[in-house]
Amino acid sequence: MTAAKFIVIEGLEGAGKSTAIAICQQFLAQHNIDFVNVREPGGTPIAEALRTIVKDNHDEEIASETELLLMYAARSQLLHNVIRPALAKGQWVLGDRHDLSSQAYQGGGREIATSTLASLGDIVLQGLKPDLTIYLDIDPAVGLARAKGRGELDRIEQQALSFFERTRARYLELANSDERIKTVNAAQSMELVHQDIVTVLEQFVKSNP
Amino acid sequence: MTAAKFIVIEGLEGAGKSTAIAICQQFLAQHNIDFVNVREPGGTPIAEALRTIVKDNHDEEIASETELLLMYAARSQLLHNVIRPALAKGQWVLGDRHDLSSQAYQGGGREIATSTLASLGDIVLQGLKPDLTIYLDIDPAVGLARAKGRGELDRIEQQALSFFERTRARYLELANSDERIKTVNAAQSMELVHQDIVTVLEQFVKSNP
Repeated sequence: MTAAKFIVIEGLEGAGKSTAIAICQQFLAQHNIDFVNVREPGGTPIAEALRTIVKDNHDEEIASETELLLMYAARSQLLHNVIRPALAKGQWVLGDRHDLSSQAYQGGGREIATSTLASLGDIVLQGLKPDLTIYLDIDPAVGLARAKGRGELDRIEQQALSFFERTRARYLELANSDERIKTVNAAQSMELVHQDIVTVLEQFVKSNP
Repeated sequence: MTAAKFIVIEGLEGAGKSTAIAICQQFLAQHNIDFVNVREPGGTPIAEALRTIVKDNHDEEIASETELLLMYAARSQLLHNVIRPALAKGQWVLGDRHDLSSQAYQGGGREIATSTLASLGDIVLQGLKPDLTIYLDIDPAVGLARAKGRGELDRIEQQALSFFERTRARYLELANSDERIKTVNAAQSMELVHQDIVTVLEQFVKSNP
């Protein structure tokens, strides 16, 4: 029997993460795989409270380091109380964002040093890495236009386009250097995106029989 | 003119920090020194929200790493929005706890590696250190008995006595290795503690004319 796997969906605002997660859920259900859904930042009551702090607009400025530490605090809580216990019980975990988001948004977008992210990764992840990450690649201008169509933008979605361009560049750089990260062109038609995601999942399941 | 200074009061629950702060406030006012009061974790709306999360009891367990990251996230916010701006304007800062608390409680009490604390210190403190720390030393059994007398204990105050014994040992170790940390015997009568604090403050002001 295959050990439980940790699958993550990543991408910019408006890349189609929610749809991709629905496709993954359907795929896992069809394969009779027991799984739990998580999202970051969030997924436990404390982590959701931290999500609200990070995403809301405040009268005080949030320092880049504060934002970074809150993201890792939320991740620590989710790993400790949900992800690790689920994997230990044999349940797969399907995540809406994980550490790659911090590397792309805080490392790329906010230009926080890679060594800083590595220190926090050592403290919080303790070696745990997703078995498969599907990165939905989209031009930020296109993605943000889609996100705006859905309603009001949160504090992070309100950043300048250049922030998201740096974030996308870091996503692509990291995806190209790690074979566990599969890039899907999210600018394609919904049918083609769907098909690419299913192909990635089929290959993943085939190589983990 | 003396550059603005950062003075911190440290110690276990029931060591008499509030009284010590009142003594410092009176001393600074008598010397016509403009200062701001801060407390940790807290001191900004976001940092106070993090204080509530850290001190409250929750249905979910708070991982040691989460607690640590929340302490540093709150500290980051306070440094960014209050402490650094005040010092830059020439105002002194009087702090109820600062980084030494993390080193003692999370490093000593929770036994988190010193290297982990050093990484977070690099990210958040960026070289800023208090000019003077007054550490009020008390036997944890005595201090906790005093704290209990004040009312209900928070999540951290509910830890086992051994936790506070490790915390005190780390406080003493650090105080003995840093001449900017002055230890006051908080088990003495209130009059003698008061006198010792004023002596420390007088020597500090004399050596920073």
